[in-house]
Amino acid sequence: MLDRIDPPVREHAAGSLDPLFSPASIAVLGASADPLKIGGRPIKFLKAHGYGGTILPVNPRGGEVQGLPALRSVAELPLGVDHAVVALPASAVLEAAQACADRGVKAMTVFSAGFAEIGPEGAAMQARLSALARESGMRIIGPNCMGVMNFRIGMIASFAFMVDLGLPRLGRTALVSQSGAFGGQALVMARRRGLPLGAWVTTGNECDVEMADCLAHFARDDQTDVIMGYMEGCRSPDRLVHALALARERGKRVVMVKAGSSDVGRAAAQSHTGALAGNDRVFDSLFRQYGVHRADSIESFFDAAYAAGSGKRITEGRVGVFTVSGGVGVLMADVAEQEKLDMAPLPQPAQDELRAMLPLAAVRNPVDGTAQIWSDMELFRRFLRTMLREGRYEAVVFFLTAMPYSPPLQQPLAEIFADLRREFPDPALVLSMLAPQALQDELADHGYLLIEDASRAIRALSALRALSQPSPGPADLASLPHVPHFPALEAANEHAAKDVLARVGIPVPPERAVAGIDDACAAASELGYPVALKVLSQDIVHKSEAGGVALDIADEAGLRQAWAAMRESVARAAPRARIEGMLVAPMAPAGVEMILGVQRDPVFGPVVMVGMGGIYAELLDDVSLRIAPVDAEGAMSMVRGLKAFALLDGARGRPRADLDALVRAIVRLSVFAHRHADRIESIDINPFRVFEAGRGAAALDAVLLTRDPEDGGHA
Amino acid sequence: MLDRIDPPVREHAAGSLDPLFSPASIAVLGASADPLKIGGRPIKFLKAHGYGGTILPVNPRGGEVQGLPALRSVAELPLGVDHAVVALPASAVLEAAQACADRGVKAMTVFSAGFAEIGPEGAAMQARLSALARESGMRIIGPNCMGVMNFRIGMIASFAFMVDLGLPRLGRTALVSQSGAFGGQALVMARRRGLPLGAWVTTGNECDVEMADCLAHFARDDQTDVIMGYMEGCRSPDRLVHALALARERGKRVVMVKAGSSDVGRAAAQSHTGALAGNDRVFDSLFRQYGVHRADSIESFFDAAYAAGSGKRITEGRVGVFTVSGGVGVLMADVAEQEKLDMAPLPQPAQDELRAMLPLAAVRNPVDGTAQIWSDMELFRRFLRTMLREGRYEAVVFFLTAMPYSPPLQQPLAEIFADLRREFPDPALVLSMLAPQALQDELADHGYLLIEDASRAIRALSALRALSQPSPGPADLASLPHVPHFPALEAANEHAAKDVLARVGIPVPPERAVAGIDDACAAASELGYPVALKVLSQDIVHKSEAGGVALDIADEAGLRQAWAAMRESVARAAPRARIEGMLVAPMAPAGVEMILGVQRDPVFGPVVMVGMGGIYAELLDDVSLRIAPVDAEGAMSMVRGLKAFALLDGARGRPRADLDALVRAIVRLSVFAHRHADRIESIDINPFRVFEAGRGAAALDAVLLTRDPEDGGHA
Repeated sequence: MLDRIDPPVREHAAGSLDPLFSPASIAVLGASADPLKIGGRPIKFLKAHGYGGTILPVNPRGGEVQGLPALRSVAELPLGVDHAVVALPASAVLEAAQACADRGVKAMTVFSAGFAEIGPEGAAMQARLSALARESGMRIIGPNCMGVMNFRIGMIASFAFMVDLGLPRLGRTALVSQSGAFGGQALVMARRRGLPLGAWVTTGNECDVEMADCLAHFARDDQTDVIMGYMEGCRSPDRLVHALALARERGKRVVMVKAGSSDVGRAAAQSHTGALAGNDRVFDSLFRQYGVHRADSIESFFDAAYAAGSGKRITEGRVGVFTVSGGVGVLMADVAEQEKLDMAPLPQPAQDELRAMLPLAAVRNPVDGTAQIWSDMELFRRFLRTMLREGRYEAVVFFLTAMPYSPPLQQPLAEIFADLRREFPDPALVLSMLAPQALQDELADHGYLLIEDASRAIRALSALRALSQPSPGPADLASLPHVPHFPALEAANEHAAKDVLARVGIPVPPERAVAGIDDACAAASELGYPVALKVLSQDIVHKSEAGGVALDIADEAGLRQAWAAMRESVARAAPRARIEGMLVAPMAPAGVEMILGVQRDPVFGPVVMVGMGGIYAELLDDVSLRIAPVDAEGAMSMVRGLKAFALLDGARGRPRADLDALVRAIVRLSVFAHRHADRIESIDINPFRVFEAGRGAAALDAVLLTRDPEDGGHA
Repeated sequence: MLDRIDPPVREHAAGSLDPLFSPASIAVLGASADPLKIGGRPIKFLKAHGYGGTILPVNPRGGEVQGLPALRSVAELPLGVDHAVVALPASAVLEAAQACADRGVKAMTVFSAGFAEIGPEGAAMQARLSALARESGMRIIGPNCMGVMNFRIGMIASFAFMVDLGLPRLGRTALVSQSGAFGGQALVMARRRGLPLGAWVTTGNECDVEMADCLAHFARDDQTDVIMGYMEGCRSPDRLVHALALARERGKRVVMVKAGSSDVGRAAAQSHTGALAGNDRVFDSLFRQYGVHRADSIESFFDAAYAAGSGKRITEGRVGVFTVSGGVGVLMADVAEQEKLDMAPLPQPAQDELRAMLPLAAVRNPVDGTAQIWSDMELFRRFLRTMLREGRYEAVVFFLTAMPYSPPLQQPLAEIFADLRREFPDPALVLSMLAPQALQDELADHGYLLIEDASRAIRALSALRALSQPSPGPADLASLPHVPHFPALEAANEHAAKDVLARVGIPVPPERAVAGIDDACAAASELGYPVALKVLSQDIVHKSEAGGVALDIADEAGLRQAWAAMRESVARAAPRARIEGMLVAPMAPAGVEMILGVQRDPVFGPVVMVGMGGIYAELLDDVSLRIAPVDAEGAMSMVRGLKAFALLDGARGRPRADLDALVRAIVRLSVFAHRHADRIESIDINPFRVFEAGRGAAALDAVLLTRDPEDGGHA
């Protein structure tokens, strides 16, 4: 029984990761004199990149290792070393880790493979490592990981040979990857794309330190503005929620890539990450709730993080586009519209001013200087100044083709754009061009974003806009209504399920369960015709298909006829079903058909769902999810997230639906599901009909399935 | 009146473009000794790239130009020069062109700006250039263009300085761009991305040679397999349709980018290309009809053309993915599902074989070799061989991260992949990796596609699949039904419009127009209750909103009541409307509500439209368009293109709709619209209800608007 609702922002009990990322001393276990070996590379990298702390190679042979005196065993380490790097065979790791813990080592990075990823034996070894971490308080990252880098202090505790290809520029973005393979790739990509990084970490098998812990670490880190996360699955949902809430609270920009949105993808993710995958849509919803931008490709992951690193904000989405090729301007406008950015036209006087300078230019937005603008660079300068001054855009993309390769243009371009940046420090400015590297570097130093492809430039701004929006964040627990607790919740027929819902505060029609036709007639005259008649049986889930629903019954004769017909058709369709009676209900007023539900997610527990009803909506799968509990703001953002929200909001002259009633029902259902998380398998309210604004809503049908909290199976 | 339906594949009357692209001699008017000047660059480029024909510089000063003897005037040219390049001020172009025509020059490229793009005066000059081309038969490309290149013969008739940055590899892809700015960019991109080109042309103001003519030229060209088109608008729809039909007939792969799908985009395109823009969706439909792949960004334009250049076919869409990072494999599976590619699992014995080699690998598809596979390159080889041999995929993507940068891996990788290509010559093989340029070049030479981003690699294969599918092509004219011609077609009220539709062969309900209530009652008893009653007035388009529709009238009393109520409500809602009577109709059986219609496109003429009815569908804009006339196959592919096609095809236990009846109606409507192209402004059949299979369909409401063929306005 869950009676208490925990706030998501709370500290994880285990120790800080500071010794891991900012150690004053690093021991290297399995230190090698060969700088190409796994035990040699960290020492080489630490020395080469100016790590200023103490490096302590440990090698049973002693002597010198890459010019440093080696200790013969962990026992020789000084007490309280911050960080130990383990480059030993798997079989030697546990003993070494125990020895480190005994010497008070604060954190450890285990490169060694051969643990849970190779099968049950390895998993058992890994479990002992986890236990050691838990008991000793020594934090362990890995095993089977590529290590940790803090570029700010030259702390390269990794054996990734990609370090030899050169490090990325130094910046305020931290990259956290569960995959070592991706981590190595990301290092190269960051350098090649000019994405500045401050820290880099791969978490591997996560015997102790999880990705979520690293996210939380960087959420707290004052030298980090942007956090990039490459996620394959989630071991501890509470730690993840905590980390995301913390990052949101501290105003960090979080960009994540997490695969697994498709059916094949889900299957592959499951085989890859086991039960850590959960329902991908729940991750999606969680990310939206905490303002995390989710990228759908590696490229857009880098583009979004790169744009986020500019520190610029796009709140309204006002974007200006300057182009020297009309068609590409139009292409960018197309993408901007898909991304719901606002390509607001320049004010008329500014348009007139630009047209006076260059009669053939398109001056609305996109602004097309045409090829002619290259013939006079002073005109070019005045033209762009006017556009930036008068447009007051939050972001401007300049599409310049390959013309910046033209030798006589390079110097003027460098000067003009440097001056523009000085004069207009606020907007995000993006150059989409093919240009010599030197010119690109110079303009990047002036604070321009360089994104070669025009469409990707617009999408990166869209990501920046998403990252600049307020997110709902954790539910406001104080605002949640009280719902009763049902100590013996059980699977129930429609009538009993609706009874539970009614007690939870979800509106249901005033309907009567009856055993015989005379009771039915009495109920109907009391409720008033027309009525609906429905069979009541736990064994019949699809009532309509079994002939168990009759609507719009006009009078008693009709009711008697429907009763008889229904008994017959149900008996034919479901001969073994136990019939518990019939339900007589007044016909509900017209409204928008919705679906409300709860599903149990293997990772996150009860998840509440709202969707549009009707077969069209079902085909398009128009639903929003959120981890329970959900407050009113969260519920409203779920409803607004529906593709067909306009149908509820009075589209095309239809009456506006009672959104308040819908939101209340979502909130109450979510609190109910959260309180009974261990008992509820699923709830399906279909349809939940929402009447005109002010007239409420009603659960017209409901199915409640429970589970045994002990064995995890259905009750 | 259009009585004849022209087949789309017919030859354009004007002369061949061979002298333009494959000239034996080139004159350069305005030839300059300075190789940096516009009149100097073509000569420099022609010499530098080994053009083997005669170069004839023309300069009034005579003497030598870049080592070649110059002629003093066009009059000195030998008769019948193939190609003259004009690098003169706009004011001198017309006279020069006339002189060239007089000397029998066969084709001309005009770089000079200052024509239609600068306003009415320039447009007038351009019109005279057009007339000259028409009258003389000399083909003119430009003015205001960047010229023409045929890399196969070193024929660089261009002043694009990007040529100095280096030319792309030689290949069988031709690039046609209306924009010079984009053309220059494309040249650099092709080189940097390893996209091999055979020819390149920019068409500028298109006074004579249009983009469509160049497309047709390359459609005929035996040295071209892939045609890339960058389109901003279309001057001559018949030439475009002809070119696309020809390319389809000759089996060329055409990839186009055409901006203008969004509202802002359309507005911008209109300001940029004037009336050439038309309705973007019509272009979309045209492209689909002729198997053209439309790219939505410059990057995907290049990726698709690059993949097309492999010459590989993907007909079923069976794609295999090998990865060394599980998460990226899942990411690719997600994209594959979005793109409806078939990530078929390996056969079970192959999975067992792979698992025996590498117990921890994921072996289904995506196949994840994990980081472990790098430790044994012979295993790596056997593993991939088994996957390729047993998977029989049409395409395989190998995601290798940045590991190929590892020096000891480079040689083995080069050998293994070379051997794999030899052993498996058929499938499209894509390497998604970060690797040294030399290794990339070597594997590209072996026929691998190199696409760094994993998601883009999958999308490129999706484009290749689209390019490998049969397309409907032009309507089969012989199969089209005869529809009557209406010599005096006029705008009509619902009843008259339905009468026209009935004569065209589109089913309408057996309804009666009546003037008084007694006639109405007589009609109703003849038709049989329940009936519908609708007001009949050309002045009321939205009948429901004016209270002009009553449904499900059960008997005569109800009819009389409805009649009275309707007269009142219509009089109130539309006091000035001329009421032409009422319509009494039997209630139609249940069915799927569709919308059928015709719209006049400013570029392509009558366009037929089919869409799902209902407000949900309307919100999602679920419609298919096609230029009339449409044959049954074309109509069926329109219907299949609807997002909610499943609703018609018996989704979720619903009865299958009468698709034949729907297709017949589309075909007949399209033939009718085509025959009356000059008279029809629009037709709107809403709803068109399609009953269960075998039971037909009916136009339940219809609006027909006509236009005056003379002034282009509404009739």
